[in-house]
Amino acid sequence: MAAPVALIQGASRGLGLAFCKHILKNKPPAAVIATCRNPDGAAALRDLAGDHPGRLTVLQLDVNREDDIRGAAARIKESFSRLDLIVNSSAMLHPTGKGETSLRDVTAQGIISTLTTNTVGPLVMAKYFAPLLQKGGGGFGQQATEKAKQHSGIIVNITAKVGSIGDNALGGWYSYRMSKAALNMATRNLSIELGRSRPKVVCVSLHPGTVNTDLSRPYHRNVPQNKLFSTELSVNCLMSIIDTLNMEKTGKAYSWDGTELPW
Amino acid sequence: MAAPVALIQGASRGLGLAFCKHILKNKPPAAVIATCRNPDGAAALRDLAGDHPGRLTVLQLDVNREDDIRGAAARIKESFSRLDLIVNSSAMLHPTGKGETSLRDVTAQGIISTLTTNTVGPLVMAKYFAPLLQKGGGGFGQQATEKAKQHSGIIVNITAKVGSIGDNALGGWYSYRMSKAALNMATRNLSIELGRSRPKVVCVSLHPGTVNTDLSRPYHRNVPQNKLFSTELSVNCLMSIIDTLNMEKTGKAYSWDGTELPW
Repeated sequence: MAAPVALIQGASRGLGLAFCKHILKNKPPAAVIATCRNPDGAAALRDLAGDHPGRLTVLQLDVNREDDIRGAAARIKESFSRLDLIVNSSAMLHPTGKGETSLRDVTAQGIISTLTTNTVGPLVMAKYFAPLLQKGGGGFGQQATEKAKQHSGIIVNITAKVGSIGDNALGGWYSYRMSKAALNMATRNLSIELGRSRPKVVCVSLHPGTVNTDLSRPYHRNVPQNKLFSTELSVNCLMSIIDTLNMEKTGKAYSWDGTELPW
Repeated sequence: MAAPVALIQGASRGLGLAFCKHILKNKPPAAVIATCRNPDGAAALRDLAGDHPGRLTVLQLDVNREDDIRGAAARIKESFSRLDLIVNSSAMLHPTGKGETSLRDVTAQGIISTLTTNTVGPLVMAKYFAPLLQKGGGGFGQQATEKAKQHSGIIVNITAKVGSIGDNALGGWYSYRMSKAALNMATRNLSIELGRSRPKVVCVSLHPGTVNTDLSRPYHRNVPQNKLFSTELSVNCLMSIIDTLNMEKTGKAYSWDGTELPW
């Protein structure tokens, strides 16, 4: 069987970069395709490619540009002809870097930018990459023994607990919360469409915990030290969940510890 | 006590127009402010204004334009100095008029347009009109006897059952479903922020049923005759719910029959 292929979108830093490192280290001979807006500035990815000759491909892709996504899909189709896993990792809290603390901070443009990157991007990724995932070999997840229940690929959308409407008791962060709630709907819709297809694709939203990244940096002082995960720890947890995914777990949102999140 | 003031956004036709008619007919002496993109083309609103002299004000407002919303709020502050109810009614299924039946139909621009009208618009409305609702007299809803639990105003966001993530078993209609899921998050967030404030504002999402409007027209042949509501019937049901609203019911989504919708 050919080596599995994983595409990590938003891979130049943070969780995305940690996903690349984890898969290269722990899932040989899997190949990794790392996408980011500016490969020339992604020194960490270049180093990683040097450490794992022939296993890491870096591609330019701005998730805000449908043309970029279409182009990357065409190139991957040519070089790999299939995918086994996609992780949609890039996200912003808000264009200003700070979530809205009250209605006063809300602007139409701020919400639209956040929705475009966090919500529209991952769904348009699914549009262009679903056909490649349907050609995958099911190299990630826990494959069902019964053929009719097997999956060919997996889509992971990185969500956030604050994107749970039912769990929302504090308010604030309008744009980010709304973008992740809408992303969870996208995950649910994708799981239905790609659960009907044959071959089938597993689609889930995963909450990584509060992770030490640029996104959460302005808030670190409010997070107890043992609740602020390194990207490595978070990705360890998330890959443990991914290792157990199959069609029975599709269409849901899970936290880093494997518990299901309410919508 | 001064007459209550209701603002109906997206009032030139469909549900919005029916809300104006209902309030003018059944809630005298309440005043109605009807907003729409193009008042010059809104013959039904002009007729209605003639039938109810001095009670209906028509204002230009495109919910996609933050400047329009800010301007309308300034004018209403000058003329009325307060509001008791806002209904955010305008929505689109998709710029093409048809919801996506599969991923193939998904486009970045289609999702962004739908999110901008259905989700961003109502939240930006809340931003500029919340201060006026906080000056309201609580003229709509069921006022609590205990002063600390009383509300000064109500925000109603028209949602849709297909915007419930947990209820989603069919898939499709990506843009519309995502826009309403994100709107429900906005409602929830608003209920928290405006439930802490004093005076308090009740915020709910309401599902009008499948209503005979331009939005649903392409799908009427799939709807059993007794499940396709007239705008009048739907608004009758929704106003019955609004009549019972108070701070104990804030932050939730209700269907036309009063049952709570899952997120």
